[in-house]
Amino acid sequence: MSHTFKFPHLKAVPLEKAYRLITHGPTVLVSAQDQQHTDVMAAAWACALEFQPAKVTVVLDKSTKTRDIIERSGFFALQVPTRKQLKMVHAVGNMSLYAAPEKLRQSGVELFQFESYDHIPVVQGCSAWLLCKLIPEPHNQQQHDLFIGEVIAAYADDRVFRDGHWYFHEVSDDWKSIHHVAGGHFYTIGEPVSVNDKV
Amino acid sequence: MSHTFKFPHLKAVPLEKAYRLITHGPTVLVSAQDQQHTDVMAAAWACALEFQPAKVTVVLDKSTKTRDIIERSGFFALQVPTRKQLKMVHAVGNMSLYAAPEKLRQSGVELFQFESYDHIPVVQGCSAWLLCKLIPEPHNQQQHDLFIGEVIAAYADDRVFRDGHWYFHEVSDDWKSIHHVAGGHFYTIGEPVSVNDKV
Repeated sequence: MSHTFKFPHLKAVPLEKAYRLITHGPTVLVSAQDQQHTDVMAAAWACALEFQPAKVTVVLDKSTKTRDIIERSGFFALQVPTRKQLKMVHAVGNMSLYAAPEKLRQSGVELFQFESYDHIPVVQGCSAWLLCKLIPEPHNQQQHDLFIGEVIAAYADDRVFRDGHWYFHEVSDDWKSIHHVAGGHFYTIGEPVSVNDKV
Repeated sequence: MSHTFKFPHLKAVPLEKAYRLITHGPTVLVSAQDQQHTDVMAAAWACALEFQPAKVTVVLDKSTKTRDIIERSGFFALQVPTRKQLKMVHAVGNMSLYAAPEKLRQSGVELFQFESYDHIPVVQGCSAWLLCKLIPEPHNQQQHDLFIGEVIAAYADDRVFRDGHWYFHEVSDDWKSIHHVAGGHFYTIGEPVSVNDKV
């Protein structure tokens, strides 16, 4: 079934604007699957790398099963969770699939797939998704735990991101992106400011 | 003159907690100097890479003079500007020292140095500073414009960061970190949320 039928607010984002989904520095969820496993983890250390072709970096510790899956499958998604998902984000960030095979169910993660990308599981209820193909770089992966992906498709929920811009300031606080500090502590994104604002 | 005399609120941050200064994803300023030039630029694509030894990544376009200086000097600082500095951040992010030799003066940047680090210029009025030694990686630099630094010293203004935690919610909005989206548009950091909060 097409995602557009089940989730009518999810709209494709042009690849050259995909960087705008994470340039403001939110903590993201990283999801991936191989033939045996599906995992989702939290990552505060994710970043845009290139406008076009759109690329991203994400730091994946060797202790995570998600990393192992991505090394095998070559695909992953970064997605921007919302304040409403805070407890789920913290839960998937603090449980390993190695130790907790029922991690996703216990964390309350619900998955779906975008049409044509059924090999990349994504998390329901986020505000934006970047579907990525791993650019294998053994040195970066081994030495720095640094993974580089080319963005092959991007989507956002048009209630909070549309026409290339976030609208966090027009929707309820539940939609705000969350920005990790340490432990269980985060900040939400705040108010829009522009260099053209009168001071 | 010691910075502690002129700026009594600036306190050293233990290196193992330096990541907390940027894990929430702020737009940063990048500063560096060589024997001829001093430059400061804005970078939204900066990220923590490792806890200990503390490391960071930052994407530096080939068009920037700051990048050229860092390749020559081997040192740079990342610093977290405040909402009060928004226009300055946007100015240094949109002028190149190549085209505008008076860029820093025109942007209103005021520099200082931390004691023992007089080869790394830093910007007054920010909330936190990470002094870095470049880890030269020709492939990452050439192929991805990606620069990796080891954090050799870190400082923060104790009015907004102390004991390993940000206090954005206890100080005026002027102190808030800014998070770039596109063009002249940013969001400030918002409110603290914790997994232990009652919903």
